[in-house]
Amino acid sequence: MKIAIQGEAGAFSHEAAQHMVPGCSIVACARSAAVFDQVQRGSVAAAVIPIENSLAGSVAEHLDLLLARQVFIQREFRLRIRHNVIAAPGIKFKELRRVFSHPVALDQCRDFFDRFPKIEPVPFYDTAGSVKHVIQRNLRDSAGIAGRQAASVYGGKIVKAGIEDDKANFTRFFLIRKKRGVLGKANKTSLAFSVKNLPGALFKALSVFALRDISLSKIESRPMRGRPWEYVFYVDILRGEDQAARNALHHLGEVADLVKVLGIYPAA
Amino acid sequence: MKIAIQGEAGAFSHEAAQHMVPGCSIVACARSAAVFDQVQRGSVAAAVIPIENSLAGSVAEHLDLLLARQVFIQREFRLRIRHNVIAAPGIKFKELRRVFSHPVALDQCRDFFDRFPKIEPVPFYDTAGSVKHVIQRNLRDSAGIAGRQAASVYGGKIVKAGIEDDKANFTRFFLIRKKRGVLGKANKTSLAFSVKNLPGALFKALSVFALRDISLSKIESRPMRGRPWEYVFYVDILRGEDQAARNALHHLGEVADLVKVLGIYPAA
Repeated sequence: MKIAIQGEAGAFSHEAAQHMVPGCSIVACARSAAVFDQVQRGSVAAAVIPIENSLAGSVAEHLDLLLARQVFIQREFRLRIRHNVIAAPGIKFKELRRVFSHPVALDQCRDFFDRFPKIEPVPFYDTAGSVKHVIQRNLRDSAGIAGRQAASVYGGKIVKAGIEDDKANFTRFFLIRKKRGVLGKANKTSLAFSVKNLPGALFKALSVFALRDISLSKIESRPMRGRPWEYVFYVDILRGEDQAARNALHHLGEVADLVKVLGIYPAA
Repeated sequence: MKIAIQGEAGAFSHEAAQHMVPGCSIVACARSAAVFDQVQRGSVAAAVIPIENSLAGSVAEHLDLLLARQVFIQREFRLRIRHNVIAAPGIKFKELRRVFSHPVALDQCRDFFDRFPKIEPVPFYDTAGSVKHVIQRNLRDSAGIAGRQAASVYGGKIVKAGIEDDKANFTRFFLIRKKRGVLGKANKTSLAFSVKNLPGALFKALSVFALRDISLSKIESRPMRGRPWEYVFYVDILRGEDQAARNALHHLGEVADLVKVLGIYPAA
């Protein structure tokens, strides 16, 4: 089964895809828009995209794309982000002088660089791409920082594991498909809606859930692309396709300008 | 007046600081936590921090720090993000083969690199830092991408201006100080609160604003650091220190577990 991801093979999205669809083959795309294109064209069976990280927050571009494109979330998955120092086989940790990775990953491993001041952090495009780089060029004094999947994809060796400063580092991923499909145990719904810019408008919209004792697990406002000062709200509710949820969405349709169900899926 | 920023001198935060406090001197810090340390220690008069970008979303780390630290937002400012190609003086655009910048900036200038395929994008730590790098090393075939402030700080020349793909690219900045202080025309309040994880709890909390016709301009939920499954809500309301706002905050104190006013300031 072909799964599109943004970034290089071996990225955390690849690791998440392996958990969600064991044995899948990865189609690596440079841009997120291309990932959605592949899903909509049907050239892949699905895509796996990060939607929020517990430290860095939401991936705004992916929220925007979920609203703009005809795709449907079928599953979610929470991956613990473990950063590892990965080098070419045979390299010893004490030989390392430079470690490449994406600036966000370098920033999440500051304690490591404080502890080993002889090792210089060097920014690179991508976590997995940094491992690919040092191994393909057979660099002897350099390593990359990435998830363990990158070591297995590029034949590298983990010379130090779990170097992230904060262990409460999780990323939530979605599996998205072209066709609407709801799994049997689906008990969570992601949706987007917009309301007129009037006092109490959001409150009225949220009443459709509160009046039915439906819990929210996330809410976020985002400016609408190309329409400054208009906002769209992204909300997750802890309900699947039951009658109360259907009634709430029908009611939301009465009070909101736009309502889009982004997906209905089992809570991770 | 000394203003702390995260990143190198010449960064967009520097540009925003110049607009907010003309003639200020910049104290550049590598980490955001250090920026807040400087404000709390009183070694700077204030700090200027980005809080959200219209394309990339909120800066989650800064929301978390505003909640955790004893600081107060005194002003907000919206800066239009214009990316420029900046090189050492005398360099012609057609000589360029490599352009350095932060991966987020490179990603926001994809059309430029598609149009000039001979120029290779090279990831760097920082936008302004990339300009510092090419000018201090006097690189003849390289440039950086940064805001115009970087050109004036490092003595570079803008060889191509405004190369960002999407012109609706704005970043909202806060000026934060140690002491609570509310300017005369303050008509906006940023606050954080948490409620028990029960159905309708957020709805009840938002009722304190809706019942008083107070508009929200932003809402966002974030997991609380170190307490998975507990959420804090960041909300901006379009009111300053009037009686209705005071009543609403008092009422919010009755229904929320934690309420913190992050600042009261004039809307940009």
